[in-house]
Amino acid sequence: MKIGLIGLGKMGIMLLAQMREKGFLVEALDKNLALQGEVEKLGGFFHETLESLVGALEKPRTLWLMLPAGEITESVYQALLPLLSEGDAVLDGGNAHYEDSLRRAQAAKDRGLSYLDVGTSGGMEGARHGACMMVGGDTEAFLRLEPLFQALCVEEGYLHCGAAGSGHFLKMVHNGIEYGMMQAIGEGFNLLHHSPYPYALEDVARVFNHGSVIRSWLMELTEGVLRGSVNLEAVEGVIPSSGEGRWTVEEALKLQVPLPVITQSVMVRYASEDREKYGEKVVASLRNAFGGHTVPQKEEP
Amino acid sequence: MKIGLIGLGKMGIMLLAQMREKGFLVEALDKNLALQGEVEKLGGFFHETLESLVGALEKPRTLWLMLPAGEITESVYQALLPLLSEGDAVLDGGNAHYEDSLRRAQAAKDRGLSYLDVGTSGGMEGARHGACMMVGGDTEAFLRLEPLFQALCVEEGYLHCGAAGSGHFLKMVHNGIEYGMMQAIGEGFNLLHHSPYPYALEDVARVFNHGSVIRSWLMELTEGVLRGSVNLEAVEGVIPSSGEGRWTVEEALKLQVPLPVITQSVMVRYASEDREKYGEKVVASLRNAFGGHTVPQKEEP
Repeated sequence: MKIGLIGLGKMGIMLLAQMREKGFLVEALDKNLALQGEVEKLGGFFHETLESLVGALEKPRTLWLMLPAGEITESVYQALLPLLSEGDAVLDGGNAHYEDSLRRAQAAKDRGLSYLDVGTSGGMEGARHGACMMVGGDTEAFLRLEPLFQALCVEEGYLHCGAAGSGHFLKMVHNGIEYGMMQAIGEGFNLLHHSPYPYALEDVARVFNHGSVIRSWLMELTEGVLRGSVNLEAVEGVIPSSGEGRWTVEEALKLQVPLPVITQSVMVRYASEDREKYGEKVVASLRNAFGGHTVPQKEEP
Repeated sequence: MKIGLIGLGKMGIMLLAQMREKGFLVEALDKNLALQGEVEKLGGFFHETLESLVGALEKPRTLWLMLPAGEITESVYQALLPLLSEGDAVLDGGNAHYEDSLRRAQAAKDRGLSYLDVGTSGGMEGARHGACMMVGGDTEAFLRLEPLFQALCVEEGYLHCGAAGSGHFLKMVHNGIEYGMMQAIGEGFNLLHHSPYPYALEDVARVFNHGSVIRSWLMELTEGVLRGSVNLEAVEGVIPSSGEGRWTVEEALKLQVPLPVITQSVMVRYASEDREKYGEKVVASLRNAFGGHTVPQKEEP
């Protein structure tokens, strides 16, 4: 089976390596032309244009998008559609918003193409050695491409979870849960870091992973991180986010479903990125206004 | 090695079974005398009084408390102390507050006894087949009793984490993290339950456990729960708590460490138990007071 893989970022390049290992032929494309050598080393073929990539695939073609969600995915998808013909399939393994995927699935259908939205989890390690995939879209297309999911996922690690959009919706909620779990871990270790006991936190993470109720892959990653540097001096305490947490909360607002912990974990990320701290300035000033409390002033630079 | 095991609740009886399986002789006691038959079936000896239990152990004695934290642990501990002699060791495997453990360790020391606080995780399954134990107390006592922890825990599943109290402090924070992780899972599945897609949630939990970032023992338990009944009709949506979450938040307040998600998960539990909903009544009434919004009224019984 031949795959056209578009997008060779952190996840894409790992997926390419796994596809090659599992015996797939891969025609690959990335706007970063410097990746050609790496692609060829992995036994893939590198293309500089969509036309060239599509031309190298046999019908019915299978195209796998592994691009940043949003504008990049959209522009590549729009450029790709006219090059494809009836029966071809496009899979989006990125973190698209499920409403975009719904729209893209409809656009594909209108042209006699198949579209599957493939929520992909497991990080770089999963992309390289066996991922977890949540697949939305027509059953027929799913069944035709199932061998691909079977090859690229750990055992029992893929699910055809429903109609178009359901894969990315599920991946969105997965990431919302992930935000909450990560924040709980971060808070717990922060409390231990400030506790009266001088715990060896890397050993704490290790024991948490062996037989405890909170054993988990995230805790294994925590142990690895803390073994590297227990006080994390080199890390800035700022948590970026790429959208799925926000979308989860937006969806909860739309559906009026209470999501206090997941919402809070998104807000913690925003607070961590807020260098201006205008809200805190307002509160500190108000304390002064009614109670005469000291307002900490910035030192002169 | 002979152990005196006091407290044969859900965890204690499992621990007794494991101790027997691993070759320990067990002298056991519980106020529920009906447990005698079960103890004897497991090859243990049942005692009705502390005096009888202590008398059946050889010096230096090893006593394992597996009792509900608080008054019960305290009263048994106070009754036990005068019966013990220099060199004996008491282990508390329950969920005591670490400050109680600190005090009990001091009381033991004053009498020439050893005391270890043993935060125990892994649930009933862990107690039966291999637990996770976080041990606080003197290194000498820990080393003497290490074979016991080695036998009762999964591989790498125990840690001597510091001085007296540190085991229960760590278990407290472990449970705080657990509250947050559980709440994130609950919220995510609730959003999926209300989502536009009719997901098979038991299969969702299954795929989350195979290769995804959020794979974890709690997610495995989630799959098991949902396979039993996906809509959980028979379950009341009320989440009791036994103290460790609250203590975690109290400790954070004392140390002034921000714990938004763990705090929120404790508050969700309290809200779930609040049948009166007085706070909601106030807010609903205020909406009416300033905006003339309808206040939903209780139907006549």
